[in-house]
Amino acid sequence: MADPTLDIIAMGDAIVDVIASCDEEFLTRHNLPKGSMQLLTPREADVLYAAMGQAREMSGGSAANSMAGIAAMGGTAAFIGQVAEDQLGMIFEHDMHALGVRFETPAMTGGPPTGRCLILVTADGQRTMNTCPGASHELDVANLDHQLIAAARILYLEGYLWGPEKPRAAMLKAVDIAHAAGREVAFTLSESVCIAGRKEGFAQMIDGGGIDLLFANQNEVLQLTGSTDPDSALTDLAAKVDTLVVTRGAEGATAISHGERITIPAAPVTKVIDTTGAGDLFAAGFLAARAKRASLERCLWTGAIAAGEVIQNYGARPIADLKALVKL
Amino acid sequence: MADPTLDIIAMGDAIVDVIASCDEEFLTRHNLPKGSMQLLTPREADVLYAAMGQAREMSGGSAANSMAGIAAMGGTAAFIGQVAEDQLGMIFEHDMHALGVRFETPAMTGGPPTGRCLILVTADGQRTMNTCPGASHELDVANLDHQLIAAARILYLEGYLWGPEKPRAAMLKAVDIAHAAGREVAFTLSESVCIAGRKEGFAQMIDGGGIDLLFANQNEVLQLTGSTDPDSALTDLAAKVDTLVVTRGAEGATAISHGERITIPAAPVTKVIDTTGAGDLFAAGFLAARAKRASLERCLWTGAIAAGEVIQNYGARPIADLKALVKL
Repeated sequence: MADPTLDIIAMGDAIVDVIASCDEEFLTRHNLPKGSMQLLTPREADVLYAAMGQAREMSGGSAANSMAGIAAMGGTAAFIGQVAEDQLGMIFEHDMHALGVRFETPAMTGGPPTGRCLILVTADGQRTMNTCPGASHELDVANLDHQLIAAARILYLEGYLWGPEKPRAAMLKAVDIAHAAGREVAFTLSESVCIAGRKEGFAQMIDGGGIDLLFANQNEVLQLTGSTDPDSALTDLAAKVDTLVVTRGAEGATAISHGERITIPAAPVTKVIDTTGAGDLFAAGFLAARAKRASLERCLWTGAIAAGEVIQNYGARPIADLKALVKL
Repeated sequence: MADPTLDIIAMGDAIVDVIASCDEEFLTRHNLPKGSMQLLTPREADVLYAAMGQAREMSGGSAANSMAGIAAMGGTAAFIGQVAEDQLGMIFEHDMHALGVRFETPAMTGGPPTGRCLILVTADGQRTMNTCPGASHELDVANLDHQLIAAARILYLEGYLWGPEKPRAAMLKAVDIAHAAGREVAFTLSESVCIAGRKEGFAQMIDGGGIDLLFANQNEVLQLTGSTDPDSALTDLAAKVDTLVVTRGAEGATAISHGERITIPAAPVTKVIDTTGAGDLFAAGFLAARAKRASLERCLWTGAIAAGEVIQNYGARPIADLKALVKL
């Protein structure tokens, strides 16, 4: 089989973040659990947007943020995701290209507009996300670039895209392409994967060996396994994948692979401004290091440093010189 | 005549800022004088945008930023400006309303898209602005709300709109409406007013008593008067308006009114991040205080505090609690 010519290719939501500050009372009034992510209909999104304060817009999307991070660390990355042919779609495309991320999925016309995520940031730096996925959930299997997928050392899939049928089918196809080319498949459990009715299919894919590297936070591990004991849940899940990586926010992260189990603390941070993108940048660091065949521990540290940087600024993409910080 | 029911109404560019960091070499390569503002054709804007790094988008426009600042200080403000019916236009409108600024100019269809300003910020905090005005320069006299203009204590006009014919005609009409209602007219010289061919008409308006309160920076005063001596230029110009306010960046500001001349230093600043919006927020502070009939010195200080806040963050709109800072 040919050597990979690309470190990572990701499939995920292609959306623009709309970020505003709010107070705790605003979240209560709008019935939004702090730190959560909910999907909004276009109508609900309009109502929430009208109530929100002055905002700034920045390209987002969980796996897209990770690819931005990998490019910023000097890795080579590509992204597959669906935008519409509109101004927000152009902004998303510009930002991917500006970072050197390959992004060639054609913008769609005649469907919903480019997706948005209304992000409310409270004074403690916690983010509450309200996603109106728009065109993003129209990603079709016909839009997959098979050669590009086969060319990447790691295929990285975002759980948010597991819910809607069309992109789920595209992800399953991409897994086949990657495995046929001898590549590694990584998946990040975004909470929505764990919702009843979705997790059965996901469990099947894991049991069938579809996932080599699984990213999850502690809550997701409990939800997916249905267990109440964090430790046994971790052990059970780790048995099903080559490598399991679990993040615990300020309490650090753990990786388990073939019986090896390594835990590291979170990177030291002066001031948390906005936790948006913490998980995305953790995955970016881990994947960028893994593509360079770094040790499990080095992968964890690289993730922690990248996550520590992004939470010290507004928005989900790095501002500091990540390449110098992580020295891969 | 009826009492004013509004502090300030402004006419200006309705545009969204697209802000990215760059190094000095980027400015040299693209032939952009640091700290300047140039108008770009849509084609030139596309080329520059493609070359720019990952950006964040925030509502902008000089006078619109000032109205945002006035609202943040607890003043009542309205804005007249032209957006298109597109996503950037919706963002601009949302942000005005989110701040409590009245903005009712109907979005236009079938013309150019909502204007953008590509802002490049260097490590020293200096901003270089590249404006593609789009719909903004299509502002028509037919879109003026006469009653709203007559209801405001001060009409504030942005010099960037003085160049194109349609909005210039609208501004001249607005001056008549305001004066007929016994209101004060303020104007900010945005460099473009001082270009040969534009300044004659402007000089006529000043000589005819059209402007009561004039904002300028030192360079604009020299350009407008054609003088090389800053001091005599100031005296000459001050003789033509009720109040002249001249800003000098880090060196402070001066106001001259009926022979009274007051100079204050700039507000102390910990770290300059991005000077975008400094002049706009200075005008906001000055106008907000003036609408409350504050002394000339208090108006200057309020402007200096507001300007000092905005340059410590990215973007041209205040983030901190300006109301608490200026205590009007």
